[in-house]
Amino acid sequence: MIDVAVIGAGPGGLSSAVTALQRNKSVTIFGRSIDSSLLFTAKEVDNYLGMPNMTGEDMLNSFFKHAINKGAEFKECRVSQILSMGDYFVINAENEFFQAKTVILSLGLSLSKTIEGEERLIGKGVSYCATCDGMLYRNKNVVVVGETEEGEEEANYLASIGCSVKYLPTYKDVLHLDSKVERIYGKALKVLGENFVEGIQVDDNTIDCNAVFFAKKTMPITSLIFGLETTDGMINVDRNMCTNIEGVYACGDCTGAPYQVAKAVGEGLVAGLSASKYIENKK
Amino acid sequence: MIDVAVIGAGPGGLSSAVTALQRNKSVTIFGRSIDSSLLFTAKEVDNYLGMPNMTGEDMLNSFFKHAINKGAEFKECRVSQILSMGDYFVINAENEFFQAKTVILSLGLSLSKTIEGEERLIGKGVSYCATCDGMLYRNKNVVVVGETEEGEEEANYLASIGCSVKYLPTYKDVLHLDSKVERIYGKALKVLGENFVEGIQVDDNTIDCNAVFFAKKTMPITSLIFGLETTDGMINVDRNMCTNIEGVYACGDCTGAPYQVAKAVGEGLVAGLSASKYIENKK
Repeated sequence: MIDVAVIGAGPGGLSSAVTALQRNKSVTIFGRSIDSSLLFTAKEVDNYLGMPNMTGEDMLNSFFKHAINKGAEFKECRVSQILSMGDYFVINAENEFFQAKTVILSLGLSLSKTIEGEERLIGKGVSYCATCDGMLYRNKNVVVVGETEEGEEEANYLASIGCSVKYLPTYKDVLHLDSKVERIYGKALKVLGENFVEGIQVDDNTIDCNAVFFAKKTMPITSLIFGLETTDGMINVDRNMCTNIEGVYACGDCTGAPYQVAKAVGEGLVAGLSASKYIENKK
Repeated sequence: MIDVAVIGAGPGGLSSAVTALQRNKSVTIFGRSIDSSLLFTAKEVDNYLGMPNMTGEDMLNSFFKHAINKGAEFKECRVSQILSMGDYFVINAENEFFQAKTVILSLGLSLSKTIEGEERLIGKGVSYCATCDGMLYRNKNVVVVGETEEGEEEANYLASIGCSVKYLPTYKDVLHLDSKVERIYGKALKVLGENFVEGIQVDDNTIDCNAVFFAKKTMPITSLIFGLETTDGMINVDRNMCTNIEGVYACGDCTGAPYQVAKAVGEGLVAGLSASKYIENKK
């Protein structure tokens, strides 16, 4: 029986693993290879304290190494279902089944539908975080595609740091757009460019730009675990990172914005500690 | 006008600074030298993801360097008071005054125990700031209880403006006390008085006085900023690290357990981002 099953090998999951191991628990991390993480594509992360100016790839590698060296098992797989058996859980990992006393969900951000060229150009002009990547496009042309009002904040912010910003909402009521941002209309069909973003096709028009920022709603966490409470697709947690299901914790992007490394790592610590204490108190 | 005033130079405060700077805000960190942090004394920290097996000292140094290299101003000082002026704040840093649009409290763990009667009589004769309140007690009797050498400065200052001052240190080497100040010996047990301070009990003796000034290593949080809501001495925050006061955020140990680096750094990121967005949305 695994003490702590961590679902997801991003910063939140790896941090929860490190703290549970520190607390002398056995930990198995179920996840895809680290190059499937959004962070992997980041050219530069400069606001994870103590590790300035790193690529996402280097950061993930150092995170992964830390967890493995400390004793975490890593199982590269996709988890399709988690069943609650009363006082333990069964994890279905590509039809291999594992038992665990506690589960930590660190599922990351599941992106909704992508458009053509979008995934191919992630980190090459396609971004999901203005705070992270905005400064790279100072004095350049960017298009923000917003599925929610948060897109307006992203667009305004990019304009404030000197980007020339066009805003393409996929919803109706655009209320808080800065006058420096130009609103455009239509449906985004395709991100254009060979090695870097060169533009975006909106209906029949091509709009030249150096970057496209997507502000997305996220996919609902469907059917992974029965009865898990979410709000707008994000897992509900309290300050101890407990979900509504006893023995199940969550951390990182799947609990909501901001989608950033330090937030995920901090939540991971708290989730790892909560899961450890839960096991200790049950003895 | 400072965009973001960070009070405290521990992991939480430094992380909030780094993220506010990333978001293009001006940041001044008000804090004591990093060797006054509890973390500084840690022999090994092994659960801050990506930085395995480090001493607290090395970790703090790398954190501090990250924030400074990114553009944070550092003001080494003790902040005695923060005043809300409606839509900005005034920070009293050893009688230098700074204006800031937002404040992030990263005060660490306040280790100073209070004695009986102390909290009840704050503002009624109990004070933590001779500069702020000294003139009220001109020609009157005051007792200064000093945990550090700074207490001697406070006592000397009060004597210089005409108070009759007794000095009760809780440490050994009293080196810079003015001859006008009377040194007393013993352990402060209780502040006496109904509606106003009338005296202080030191061991079995009662010393009559009109005010008691405490010069502490750390300030009780409630005396720092008026109206801040706390629970059991910890600052109340929501998931965005907002306190009950608009424009004031908190992060790190001062918001409650677990008292660990990753938790503080994660909360710092969220606080830094919340403060930045608050400024952007006010424009």
